[in-house]
Formats: sequence, C-alpha cells, structure tokens
Amino acid sequence: MAKSARKNDEIRFIVHGDEAILQPLIAKRRELTDIVEIRHAPDVVSMDAKPSRVVRNGKTTSMWATLQTVEAGDAPVAVSCGNTGALMAIAMLRLRKAPGVDRPAIAVLWPSPRAGSHKVVLDVGADIRAEADNLLQYAIMGAEYARIGLGIDMPRVGILNVGTEEHKGRPSLQDANKLLEAAAQGDGFTHVGFVEGGDLASDTVDVIVTDGFTGNVALKTAEGTASLIRGFLKEAMMHTIFSRIGALFALTSLRRLQKRVDPRRVNGGVFLGLNGAVVKSHGGADATGVSAAIKLAFTMAKGGFSETLAQRIASHATKHEDAPKTQGDTA
Amino acid sequence: MAKSARKNDEIRFIVHGDEAILQPLIAKRRELTDIVEIRHAPDVVSMDAKPSRVVRNGKTTSMWATLQTVEAGDAPVAVSCGNTGALMAIAMLRLRKAPGVDRPAIAVLWPSPRAGSHKVVLDVGADIRAEADNLLQYAIMGAEYARIGLGIDMPRVGILNVGTEEHKGRPSLQDANKLLEAAAQGDGFTHVGFVEGGDLASDTVDVIVTDGFTGNVALKTAEGTASLIRGFLKEAMMHTIFSRIGALFALTSLRRLQKRVDPRRVNGGVFLGLNGAVVKSHGGADATGVSAAIKLAFTMAKGGFSETLAQRIASHATKHEDAPKTQGDTA
Repeated sequence: MAKSARKNDEIRFIVHGDEAILQPLIAKRRELTDIVEIRHAPDVVSMDAKPSRVVRNGKTTSMWATLQTVEAGDAPVAVSCGNTGALMAIAMLRLRKAPGVDRPAIAVLWPSPRAGSHKVVLDVGADIRAEADNLLQYAIMGAEYARIGLGIDMPRVGILNVGTEEHKGRPSLQDANKLLEAAAQGDGFTHVGFVEGGDLASDTVDVIVTDGFTGNVALKTAEGTASLIRGFLKEAMMHTIFSRIGALFALTSLRRLQKRVDPRRVNGGVFLGLNGAVVKSHGGADATGVSAAIKLAFTMAKGGFSETLAQRIASHATKHEDAPKTQGDTA
Repeated sequence: MAKSARKNDEIRFIVHGDEAILQPLIAKRRELTDIVEIRHAPDVVSMDAKPSRVVRNGKTTSMWATLQTVEAGDAPVAVSCGNTGALMAIAMLRLRKAPGVDRPAIAVLWPSPRAGSHKVVLDVGADIRAEADNLLQYAIMGAEYARIGLGIDMPRVGILNVGTEEHKGRPSLQDANKLLEAAAQGDGFTHVGFVEGGDLASDTVDVIVTDGFTGNVALKTAEGTASLIRGFLKEAMMHTIFSRIGALFALTSLRRLQKRVDPRRVNGGVFLGLNGAVVKSHGGADATGVSAAIKLAFTMAKGGFSETLAQRIASHATKHEDAPKTQGDTA
C-alpha cells in the first residue's frame, strides 16, 4: 500500500481486518495515515477453507467485509490476496452476477514478446466448465478488459485449442468458434479463431478464452516453467569461475529479465462479470505483487470498467434478441 | 541418424521415402551406408493432412510404410517427425491397440529441477477426452515408461487437476483418484493424488496423467514460455555494454542452460498402448532433436518396452476381473 501511495496520490484505501494488528502497522507509515480507513473484522478466511463453508459461516471475516464495502458502494473495487475459491463465492453472493452474464470468469494478464506488452487470458479458474455461450461472454468481457486495462482498441480474440484447424478439438469449441465469428466486429473485437498453448507466449492474439480448468493448468504450468528456468539459470551461472564473473556483469540484464517474467508484476487476476470489480492477488504476493494488483484495481475503477462492461453485455444481448445469429455492425 | 550412429554402434535403420532423394543423401555419409536400408515409398503425409483422409488414401506414403515395417516385425520401433494425428491414426490401424488397452496415449519427457532428471507426462494429444478408466491405464503405461525410460523403480504418479484437495475438479478426476489409489502398489507405482500445473516443473512426482486436451495445452504452454524467456534473456543481455561483456562471459552458462531446457533434447513423444513402439519427434526437429528421438526409441526397443507393458496391463486386468467397478468399457 505504501508503495502504491507513493506512486499515486489519488488513491484511498479501506482496510479490513483485525484493528489491533492493523492500527500500529498503518500508524508506522506516515504516508498512509491520512488515506487509510480501517474497518474492523475479527476473523480471516484461511487459504484451505472450503468456499461453501465460508459462504455459510464467513460473515465475520475480513474478506466478507471487503466485498460488502464494494457492494455498498463505499469502494469501487476490492483487492484480496486470499483464498480464490472463497473470494469468488462471496463475490458471487454479495456483488452478484452483472445483468446478462451467465458465468463470471477470472482473467489474468500474461506477458507477450513485445517489450512491456501483455495479453488477457480467461477463465483461469472461476469455473472448471465452459460451454460455447460462456466462451463468447468471456470473449466480450476479455476484450473490454484488454481495452481498458491494456489500451488495445480492437483486441484480437482467440479460443484455446489443441490445433488451429477448424475441425480440431471439442464440439463446444467448434460452436464457440462460430459464435465468436458472428459476434466479433459488432462486439468490439477481432476474431482470430483457434490458438494453441504456444500462443499464450506469442504476439498473434490479445485475448485468449478457455474453460477454467484448462486456463488454470496453463497458468500454473507457465509459472512453473518460468521458475524452473530461473533455477536452471542461477545454477548454470554459478557453475564455473568464468560464468561467475559473467553473472556479475550480467546482473543488470538478469534484473531486467526478472522484471519482465516476474509473476508478481502481472499478478492481478480480475473477476469479470460481477456488479463491481474484484482484483485477486497471488497468495504469496509481496509488496511488489500487491502494489501491481492495486495499480490494476485503480486503473479499472478510474476507467469505469464495470459500467462499460455491463453496457457491452447488454448491447450484445439486445442485438441478438431480435436477430439471432446475425452479425452486428461491419465497422 | 549420423549423430546417433556415431554414438551407438548397435543401431540399424530402415528408412522409408523417395529412394531417388534418400539414396544420394545416405551415400554421402560413409558411417551410414552399412547400417541403413532404404525402402522406397513414393508419397509423403503432409503436415496439414486430415488423419481420416490419410487412413483412406495414405497407403503409398512413407509413414504408412514405416508402420508396416514395425507391424511386420522388421523393426521393433518407428521414429517419425511427421503429422502427429496421421501417425496416431495409421499406428492404431496397423499396429492396433495392445490387448486390454482402451485408449493409447502420447507421453513426453518433461524436465525436472534435479540435474538431468525428467518426468513422464501423458496424454499430450492422442485423444482429447479421458475418463477415469483411461487415466488409470495412462498411470500404468506411464509408470512402465518411467521405469524403462528413466530407470525409476516405483514411479510416483499424480493426476493433473486445478488443486490438490480431494474435492477439486471434475467428477471423472475424483473417480480416477480412487481407481489409482486402489491400483497403485499392485501395479507398480506410488499414487500421490492430485497435482497442479506447477508440478509439471516440480520434483514431487514422476508421472503425471491427464486428458489429451489439457496435456497438449500444457506442453505447448511450457514450450512457449521457455522460448519467450529465451527471447527476453537474449534481449536483456544485449541491452548495455556491461551486459554484453557479461553475456560473453556467461556464454558457457547459457549453453549449459540451453541444454537443460532445449525442447529438442526431450523431444521424443512416445505412443503407448500399441503393439509396437512409435516415437514421435517434433515437426521442426533438427539433427539434435531427431537424435534424441532415436536414442529414446533404441532404449525402449532394447528394454523390451512393448512386451513388458503388455504384461502389466494384462496382469492388472486379471487382478481386477472379479472385482466390480474397474475396467469398464468407455468409447
């Protein structure tokens, strides 16, 4: 928070948790005292708590209180590092699905090859299933997120599959491919068809839609691969005296590299499709990670993300009410 | 081939393809002339050919001829860099499923953190679906592959899921978890329960089973991530004069690193569950990649892989014949 406050003087916080613990922590940071309000919540949601249990018994937790604050309109966006399943479950209950949304999704920003660029990938774990209709909504929501979060005017949207040919993959993906093709232009995105796992790291697409099972596995696989390579690299660098000298010289490069692949910097998973924005930071996030999540939350609140998204979904629904399966504008 | 021949003097090849092209290529390499037999095949299977078409019209292709050679017993194992779908389709037709196997799978070797160690991941794309029974057979086949290919006596087998808790994921995965728990010791592996995408890069498991859709996406995501990081690293290294000097010194480290993460070195995907072994190398594989695939094929042939695997499957079936609720027919 202190990190975010130093970088951004428009930001204000409402912090939920045990006041006796939070009060002295905040008091220590002079830059925070004026911009932070503490709201006491006696309990916390543990990382291994079952979402269904939390929904029944979690009313005194800081997570619950945080989402109630957003529900009440006291804050436009919530940031949490806690249990993802519980956060989603409480968010569904308190904020409820936005009108017209069948299934909310968790979206993440994924690094792309071009310097500093990212893409949006969703769903990475809100729901393990996704039918063709859901994938279409993910496309509309993901495109809106790319527009506000990444500043891409007409995002290129692709469907994750095991091959790029039209006959590949599950029947629901082939249906989704047709739905996206029909919706694309009118709903503010370009449809690029099927993409593969390798395209998560390519420059050919800005938004990748998939079911929450596949997305979750892909996200964790990529993170695991990155940390595996970091480990190999460190080991390789320490191997000989020459490479140790090399490592010394290469230090700046490695720091620059770390900045690019550091999962903490692309940390903010975002819940899309609710009445209010929720940014989920990694459980293990440190100051850099939380600061990235806060920055993302601020950008979304400032851009009026939830409102714009609601309009998009409503406009898609209206267009397709009278004219099933026709294309909207051909702009 | 020349690379493999230099490293291994027990190896012999039967090469299928256009004799007019192959003859002069082989003749140029003196070390190959005595150990290579050329069998003429006028056509090739293109990389974008539909498997169903190839099965109907592909009898004159080199791929078809290669698998017929294995079927006839002239070679114990086939190596191909071609179209995976077509290779699987022809292999199913010519070699047929091994007795007791419902669904063959493609397995790959995945790098692990410990120096030089790998794990087995399957299915990475033979079939996009897998029921609980199929995952159990993947576990038995993957464990056998880890035993012969990696020399691990009692491989630890895990099921890929979106969390490690027992209540997570699809119902079919929960069923598979129970089947593997019941089968484990008797079928020569240790069951570790659910693993996540991050465990593909961890040391906690030797064999990971999943459906071919998820496995394919994970494999390509990991490859994409590795090449993304390689690109970032190169860029970072060229950024300043200091890091250029560093890069110069770090060259040996980087080469060592590349050896560890180079997908060409863990290139051989293997078709498990057929009457005969088939090793699939990447379409874009160069000499290093093909050599890795050939080495793997040789190890498997020498270890009598197909025979041992058939015994395992048969013994599992016998043990569970009286017991209800296993080995049901899916399809």
